[in-house]
Amino acid sequence: MEDIYKLVESEATNIERTDEEEDDHFDPETNNLHQPLLKRNRTLSSNPLAIVGAKVSHIESLDYEYLMGFIFMAGANFLLTLVAAVLCVCFAPTAAGPGIPEIKAYLNGVDTPNMFDNRKHRSRCRGLRPRKRRASSTHRQLHCFSIRPRRPDNYRIKWRWLRYFNNDRDRRDLITCGSSSGVCAAFRAPVGGVLFALEEVATWWRSALLWRTFFSTAVVVVVLRAVMEYCKSGDCGLFGKGGLIMFDVSGVSVRYHVVDIIPVAVIGVLGGLLGSLYNHLLHKVLKVYNVINKKGKLHKLLLSLSVSIFTSVCLYGLPFLAKCQPCDTSLPNTTCPTTGRDGNFKQFNCPKGYYNDLATLLLTTNDDAVRSIFSINTPTEFNIFSLFIFFALYCILGLITFGIAVPSGLFLPIILMGSAYGRLLGIAMSPYTKIDQGLYAVLGAASLMAGSMRMTVSLCVIFLELTNNLLLLPITMLVLLIAKTVGDCFNPSIYEIILELKGLPFLDANPEPWMRNITVGELADVKPAVVTLNGIEKVGRIVNYTPIGSPNGANELHGLVLRAHLILVLKKKWFLQERRRTGEWEVREKFTSIDLAERGATIEEVIVTKDEMEMYVDLHPLTNTTPYTVVESMSVAKAMVLFRQVGLRHMIILPKYQAAGVFPVVGILTRQDLIAHNILSVFPHLERSKGTKKGQ
Amino acid sequence: MEDIYKLVESEATNIERTDEEEDDHFDPETNNLHQPLLKRNRTLSSNPLAIVGAKVSHIESLDYEYLMGFIFMAGANFLLTLVAAVLCVCFAPTAAGPGIPEIKAYLNGVDTPNMFDNRKHRSRCRGLRPRKRRASSTHRQLHCFSIRPRRPDNYRIKWRWLRYFNNDRDRRDLITCGSSSGVCAAFRAPVGGVLFALEEVATWWRSALLWRTFFSTAVVVVVLRAVMEYCKSGDCGLFGKGGLIMFDVSGVSVRYHVVDIIPVAVIGVLGGLLGSLYNHLLHKVLKVYNVINKKGKLHKLLLSLSVSIFTSVCLYGLPFLAKCQPCDTSLPNTTCPTTGRDGNFKQFNCPKGYYNDLATLLLTTNDDAVRSIFSINTPTEFNIFSLFIFFALYCILGLITFGIAVPSGLFLPIILMGSAYGRLLGIAMSPYTKIDQGLYAVLGAASLMAGSMRMTVSLCVIFLELTNNLLLLPITMLVLLIAKTVGDCFNPSIYEIILELKGLPFLDANPEPWMRNITVGELADVKPAVVTLNGIEKVGRIVNYTPIGSPNGANELHGLVLRAHLILVLKKKWFLQERRRTGEWEVREKFTSIDLAERGATIEEVIVTKDEMEMYVDLHPLTNTTPYTVVESMSVAKAMVLFRQVGLRHMIILPKYQAAGVFPVVGILTRQDLIAHNILSVFPHLERSKGTKKGQ
Repeated sequence: MEDIYKLVESEATNIERTDEEEDDHFDPETNNLHQPLLKRNRTLSSNPLAIVGAKVSHIESLDYEYLMGFIFMAGANFLLTLVAAVLCVCFAPTAAGPGIPEIKAYLNGVDTPNMFDNRKHRSRCRGLRPRKRRASSTHRQLHCFSIRPRRPDNYRIKWRWLRYFNNDRDRRDLITCGSSSGVCAAFRAPVGGVLFALEEVATWWRSALLWRTFFSTAVVVVVLRAVMEYCKSGDCGLFGKGGLIMFDVSGVSVRYHVVDIIPVAVIGVLGGLLGSLYNHLLHKVLKVYNVINKKGKLHKLLLSLSVSIFTSVCLYGLPFLAKCQPCDTSLPNTTCPTTGRDGNFKQFNCPKGYYNDLATLLLTTNDDAVRSIFSINTPTEFNIFSLFIFFALYCILGLITFGIAVPSGLFLPIILMGSAYGRLLGIAMSPYTKIDQGLYAVLGAASLMAGSMRMTVSLCVIFLELTNNLLLLPITMLVLLIAKTVGDCFNPSIYEIILELKGLPFLDANPEPWMRNITVGELADVKPAVVTLNGIEKVGRIVNYTPIGSPNGANELHGLVLRAHLILVLKKKWFLQERRRTGEWEVREKFTSIDLAERGATIEEVIVTKDEMEMYVDLHPLTNTTPYTVVESMSVAKAMVLFRQVGLRHMIILPKYQAAGVFPVVGILTRQDLIAHNILSVFPHLERSKGTKKGQ
Repeated sequence: MEDIYKLVESEATNIERTDEEEDDHFDPETNNLHQPLLKRNRTLSSNPLAIVGAKVSHIESLDYEYLMGFIFMAGANFLLTLVAAVLCVCFAPTAAGPGIPEIKAYLNGVDTPNMFDNRKHRSRCRGLRPRKRRASSTHRQLHCFSIRPRRPDNYRIKWRWLRYFNNDRDRRDLITCGSSSGVCAAFRAPVGGVLFALEEVATWWRSALLWRTFFSTAVVVVVLRAVMEYCKSGDCGLFGKGGLIMFDVSGVSVRYHVVDIIPVAVIGVLGGLLGSLYNHLLHKVLKVYNVINKKGKLHKLLLSLSVSIFTSVCLYGLPFLAKCQPCDTSLPNTTCPTTGRDGNFKQFNCPKGYYNDLATLLLTTNDDAVRSIFSINTPTEFNIFSLFIFFALYCILGLITFGIAVPSGLFLPIILMGSAYGRLLGIAMSPYTKIDQGLYAVLGAASLMAGSMRMTVSLCVIFLELTNNLLLLPITMLVLLIAKTVGDCFNPSIYEIILELKGLPFLDANPEPWMRNITVGELADVKPAVVTLNGIEKVGRIVNYTPIGSPNGANELHGLVLRAHLILVLKKKWFLQERRRTGEWEVREKFTSIDLAERGATIEEVIVTKDEMEMYVDLHPLTNTTPYTVVESMSVAKAMVLFRQVGLRHMIILPKYQAAGVFPVVGILTRQDLIAHNILSVFPHLERSKGTKKGQ
């Protein structure tokens, strides 16, 4: 209420001044609206009553304008959010959120059709169950296998040429290139994009992949540059503002000495603390959101929309709290207050010659906000109060916006928070150091990102390419390393938290220490027994339980048959009247490589007649005769190294002692069985010996 | 001979001019020497004979000075080379050459005490031999195993704390960090160093390793910066010249458009061609050098010294061929001719107001040479003739210097060649494009490096950090990619060539296509039969042939015993009177973890008495009971993936069909057995089906 008063007062003073000095407008934004009004004032300026009347009506009209402004802004915000949310909720649930965790999981080998509704997926796919619940768990088992081999592009349009990418490796390479190109396009940081894909996203890395991603980002940046060249005239709206370097701080000459290590270290430590705190809070918020989103599509929608409204209210309302700053006329070539869209000095709700620094930060694009916070040699531009409001607001928005059903990222919010925090720190430390506040803002942003995302090299290069100041490199590196190290003391990186929350079976680089205390044999024991087939098998048996491994009667391991291939055989009715071996050529003429690469099919689609059930199938040609195997006495840790490094889907366990009577396969392990969480759910006693994972 | 004449003439003209204009010196370098002489001339200037006499004596004295200069330079060069060569030949042969291939091999898992004398090593270690030569090859086999587990630090000083790095992984991490720090210090490019270690050097990569290398380079760059801060006063000689950015071209504002893609593509293609040509020639030269170096230490020494003399002659002699350029007085703040050590306009053998551009390039440090070639907005500074001589000279020197017994690198020579070639191209293309010649030089250097070393991302970042011009990034990326692609069409990268030449068993990322046509069983067949032991074995048998695998009589695979551990048992005389199992505790109190990590020991050091030969040893506690195994029917390609990805040293081959009578181990494969070259030497028929490796 009182700020309304303040508003009224300031308006009043304005009017008086504008009456005295022959100036017929005081607000560039509302210029055209006021002119007639003020003209009228002047005509009647002899009559005090009239002036009062004018004042009042004028103040009302001002309120009215600000109200209209808010309605327009909030309305646009609401509509856009509505469209995005509806699309995400009804058509593409996987489009919500940043998507990086899903990509990370996919490149790790996780391959489930809808990576999103985690509970369902986890309950369906957890491979380990006590023996007594065999039947049900066998079903789960099969179910799990049946969803595994399906590919994301199976329920999309199929072009002919897509067939060439119909193997995992090419698909993974494509996705890696895509992610790097995305980062490249977002930050105009080609090398940063490559490094991001390398450090954060990809699991397996080949030098070939390295220069393929590099090539894709090169194409992106060349195209980007060409388009910017074209858009220089400014007829592409906001696109291409700032040129190829977004937040250029190359102007400042960095002067720092050994003593400046101390403030730099402080930035790093605080950034690490704030980052891990942010991760912690975000984890909590996302848990709450999961509960809400479970309630149904309507809840999802309402949640998103309420967040959108809250955002508009804050962005538009908070600037009224900021007190107006007088323009510093000493600054060269700066128009203050700003006229037009961009600029550092927005005159929002302020008299002439004054500017509203909070409005400058809030009522603009995020890029411009970052630019103004990074701006160099402007020590008095923002006061602590406004910066703090900005920081707090973006912390809240960053936390509550991330989980809603809208495509949203992490980078820019964290950069905004971090830069604000860095600049605050810079103001606080200004007596003690000679580093510019703008650089503090840059370092703050870097530290917060490192503290939350725990990346080092890629962030360093991204910031180098964002700010184009090579001399900043040494301190940036220090800040990043300190922040990452501090953050790692408290919780894992934000992406790992989200992965864990989504229940995606992500295989970590190195196994937990306690995995050395359990053997794969013990794991296999608690799993349902493996269903086995003879080399030449009755159709009936195949239909009844589609199996995994196929050693024949003579107690030797033939190899592995993919479930998809068995279903393919059944669908194509490739049956034999008598029990005989088939030749390679018979297979070749029946199945194309594309058929075999095909997944999607399910057992439900198969119709087999009664007498077909009595016919035979020769599985030999379809068998992978040399699967990777481990001995049952091998520790899970050791087996996991094999599983992850070679990138397996299933690993066959052989018995320790092989003899005539012994069954040649102890069991089969899949990704699900090697997830630490799943193992601990069956072997809780390992929890005790569970140590915190180090060196990662 | 004729250039001596030219010299004389030019001197003569100089004298005359100096006589006419009242100037008592014409050569800042030889200033103090001439003054008295010239004074004499002027006193006798009435007598023509005297003048002639003066001329002659003066010319002689000039010859004498240039001669002295040459002697000093060549002498210093000779002495330094002598010291380096003697050290390399007699004490540290591994110090010669760039060392990157050896590090690459070590990080790939190759671990032989002296990686250098390749013939010996290859003949000793090639694992595959026809069966008929069993005995000898068994010996070779053991020999091979006996040298394998030895560590490089075994014949260095042993500090207590070094024990903590006594496992392969930590040692590899340390070496990776070291290599990245080295590149970082050499080019003042921290991120580039990390990427170099990642892209070129390391084989296995973990995110932990990534940020460890990053940390090490961060420390390096911070220290570097502090020392430079200290050395600003210039009392550290040449160190720290150019500051943190070596070849700064950030001054120029890069203006290029779509049409400039064409010259950029041309640079890339030519760079790729030249680079692969360089690799080809270097391969030939190194082969010749190998023959010479085989002849003994003296030959090595003589080779190095003759190369050094040749270098001095060229560097000092060639500038006499260049014709003097008139100083361009229009250039701002440049002193021409240069006074003092650095500067772009050396007045070598030129009259006043003229400079010798070839001398500017040759008679200075390499860094300064690169800086002058990279210099912007100096289109007329170097003429084509001098640049071409420079280019040709460095091609020759680069080829003949690399192989000599002196620590030498590849980076700077290639940068020099490339920059010269780029600048030549720039001059040739100047009518058609607006890109500055200096940028052409930068791009030329980049293209030649990519064409020879085939790196992309790391080179891109290194060049970014060398030149500090972010706007160059897009075209640099294009040039690098084009050059690499063109180069890959002709031959592998320079490092792979050297690896192959040294016969280091480097396991490539992905197996050759033809490896799918051969099974590990076939490989095992041509290898000597595995020597096996019982679980509890007579000392005598162990001493006679120290074995590899140890399945006992009951036809089951116990596991793998390291040769080193067997020797340890023999040395420590850990013998049992009767055939009994020992407890864990007995082992623990006998062997410390450090003992077991110990390698070095050889069977020759073991002395066993006659009746000890009859005693027993329980091998169970020392056995690795769960080695990684493959079935004999698995293809070599598939087995190699396991071997390399998991980073094995030996892989046990199990029989396809296991029954009572069947021997449980078919054979053991080691790194040597999986090297393409070795396999082809035994199975030449695969050569036919050998396809060129694509997508590397």
